[in-house]
Amino acid sequence: MASWVHVSDDSDFSLQNLPYGVFSTADSGPRIGVAIGQYVLDVKALAQDQVFDDLDFNVETLQEATLNAYASLGRNVHSKVRRRLQQLLDDNTQLADVLRDSQRRRERCLIPLASVTMHLPVVVGDFTDFFIGIHHANNVKFLKPGSDIVQLVPPFWDQPTAYHGRSSSVVVSGTPVRRPKGQYRVDGRAVSGICEKLDFEVEFAAVIGKGSQFGDAIDVDNAEDHIFGFVLLNDWSARDFQKNEGTGPFTCKNFATSISPWIVPFEALEPFRVPPTEAGRTLPDYLTQKEINSAYEIPIRATLEAGSERYHMAECNTKFVIFSFAQMIAHHTRGGCPLRSGDLLATGTNSGPTRQEQGCLLELTRYGTDPYEISTKGATESKIRRTFLEDGDVVEFSSQLRVNGGLKNIGFGVCRGEILPAN
Amino acid sequence: MASWVHVSDDSDFSLQNLPYGVFSTADSGPRIGVAIGQYVLDVKALAQDQVFDDLDFNVETLQEATLNAYASLGRNVHSKVRRRLQQLLDDNTQLADVLRDSQRRRERCLIPLASVTMHLPVVVGDFTDFFIGIHHANNVKFLKPGSDIVQLVPPFWDQPTAYHGRSSSVVVSGTPVRRPKGQYRVDGRAVSGICEKLDFEVEFAAVIGKGSQFGDAIDVDNAEDHIFGFVLLNDWSARDFQKNEGTGPFTCKNFATSISPWIVPFEALEPFRVPPTEAGRTLPDYLTQKEINSAYEIPIRATLEAGSERYHMAECNTKFVIFSFAQMIAHHTRGGCPLRSGDLLATGTNSGPTRQEQGCLLELTRYGTDPYEISTKGATESKIRRTFLEDGDVVEFSSQLRVNGGLKNIGFGVCRGEILPAN
Repeated sequence: MASWVHVSDDSDFSLQNLPYGVFSTADSGPRIGVAIGQYVLDVKALAQDQVFDDLDFNVETLQEATLNAYASLGRNVHSKVRRRLQQLLDDNTQLADVLRDSQRRRERCLIPLASVTMHLPVVVGDFTDFFIGIHHANNVKFLKPGSDIVQLVPPFWDQPTAYHGRSSSVVVSGTPVRRPKGQYRVDGRAVSGICEKLDFEVEFAAVIGKGSQFGDAIDVDNAEDHIFGFVLLNDWSARDFQKNEGTGPFTCKNFATSISPWIVPFEALEPFRVPPTEAGRTLPDYLTQKEINSAYEIPIRATLEAGSERYHMAECNTKFVIFSFAQMIAHHTRGGCPLRSGDLLATGTNSGPTRQEQGCLLELTRYGTDPYEISTKGATESKIRRTFLEDGDVVEFSSQLRVNGGLKNIGFGVCRGEILPAN
Repeated sequence: MASWVHVSDDSDFSLQNLPYGVFSTADSGPRIGVAIGQYVLDVKALAQDQVFDDLDFNVETLQEATLNAYASLGRNVHSKVRRRLQQLLDDNTQLADVLRDSQRRRERCLIPLASVTMHLPVVVGDFTDFFIGIHHANNVKFLKPGSDIVQLVPPFWDQPTAYHGRSSSVVVSGTPVRRPKGQYRVDGRAVSGICEKLDFEVEFAAVIGKGSQFGDAIDVDNAEDHIFGFVLLNDWSARDFQKNEGTGPFTCKNFATSISPWIVPFEALEPFRVPPTEAGRTLPDYLTQKEINSAYEIPIRATLEAGSERYHMAECNTKFVIFSFAQMIAHHTRGGCPLRSGDLLATGTNSGPTRQEQGCLLELTRYGTDPYEISTKGATESKIRRTFLEDGDVVEFSSQLRVNGGLKNIGFGVCRGEILPAN
């Protein structure tokens, strides 16, 4: 399956992807689009032209300035719209007159990505950040004291551990992040000042589609129906502030969280399912999921740009989680906590077993005691060392998933942010 | 200053209060109102009748189904509208023809409270719960180990400690709360089941009016400008789940948080200002506030209804906080975390120095080891004991603030919830 729109080998946006985003152009405000090759397809314009009118759903949801209402409609609608979009864009389209052969509509609806501004695709009602990566947990020494074996403190193995994050500071990729001020301790004394241990965290997040009601628990085997799609997420962290906070992460993480501009649809990641790590262990009934391949194998590359160079930082993967998104949802709603369309559920840091697979500088530099050497790729290799992030550093996450024998790719666009100096 | 609308001595809703809420009637959906005596004044209807049109603000904000847009307009607008409402309702009104002497408009706009349904007054973007009560902190033993004196672990004294709460499960008073399921530990083993240690927490919260931008810190001396008003808040807690969670409160608190239906305007609480506890200590510049009387002395009574009896549970007060709301806001935004209109910032449990002033059962029963005896008031006193909450228990918070020599009251309406058995 290929598109009549040219999709280059290095594009994230094949016909197998069709991720949703919210974009604006110089002459028109934020609206819903879908990425294909080097273009964004203006879905609002297509909806206004009644291209989806036979599909039996509320087409007005595609004409809003965020994806929340559309996401809330549920998987059946998303599948129908996805099929329609693939029909329109397919080489062998049966609907050639609608888009491919209509120069007027092509010019109006296929807009070069280079000319658009991307916006936060959803209003985030709540952001929950989990702590379910086995290697991340080991590396940050959340271990049972005195134990040599991998024996993490309860309740790490029994339930998807999480904290509530801050939703107001979730920003779209490209938004610069100012180095925060806050409090840390020196020799036991409180100091107020500029963060000196600024870090990134490589994360992967589900965007909630269909919500749930106050008081209702979501069954683990139905939980995937509530996922609209997935984004890359950078949970920026001030490690000096974090060490000084008593009741879970607060100012150490609430200054910024970046997400990729494109939400990859749930269905597009079907080929990349794998079982979670340590999936065989006994769990309570409400976390026992029928689906075996309930996690994902998504490689995420972290690069750092400093000066005019681009350095290779880490190669992470989402497969080292000990719980699936379905299990996260089941646990999250177990007591009746409602989910709303647009909520984010993130995995926590996606570290792997080797150093170059670690997803944050806290791990890569062993709590800042061992500076990490990173290098550029290519003919003239250049090397620098980092302990924590410096002003002007640009951190970028990307992922390229190969489908159809490597010919076509699925990705999220980049999740990127530059560190501005403190005010 | 008194109103031509009858305000009984035991009413929360004097002319000095005029709290905002969102109500609906049998024949019309959620809209903005203000409470006076036994009535709600339909502010949307007044706005549609152009009663505020000379006041130079976006009157459409008063015609929405939540208070967020109106709250975001800032103190100047709220003051003008408050003065207009007081003019309309004052005994010596200069605007008699607008409401008092217009039978048609009185009948349309003054609706008996007994006939309306109250709704969540704002869409809560984010809910932040602080931990700044000195007696609560002492009672839950957040102490420096081995210390006899009040020497709480860092960073309790240096910064307003907080965790991010869950906003999707904030519900309006009257919404029943189902006993949650979750995980706890027995002899170190994880158990999945029904909460056996369900608790309430007497809290007081600010509702944010004017928001702030991503990346901006709010100066402590300007921070009060961002407060729209105040509510009573019950931070329901599953103590067994809480003890088993590793990175701050998650499922132990995300199943429900109740707030009073009425938001008491910032200006209405001016007479009740006091300095925070331990206000003289040295703090970083960004937390050093010029205003001395930056906290509030608000008594909050907690009662429990069981069977057909009403028991006296606790008499709390908001004055035992070691930080003001302005300091909470300054710390919250120090790193650039934006506030949005409708955000909630709560104090944490408002316990006092004696047992009957403790604001949760965890304290009142000394971690559940010493059941607490509560009694009814009146001629035929009845007594029961509680360790934690039982199914069918109704917990209610209320506050009556006396102004003008005790003749007129300010209150929030009740913050009330019944415990339903687990599903």
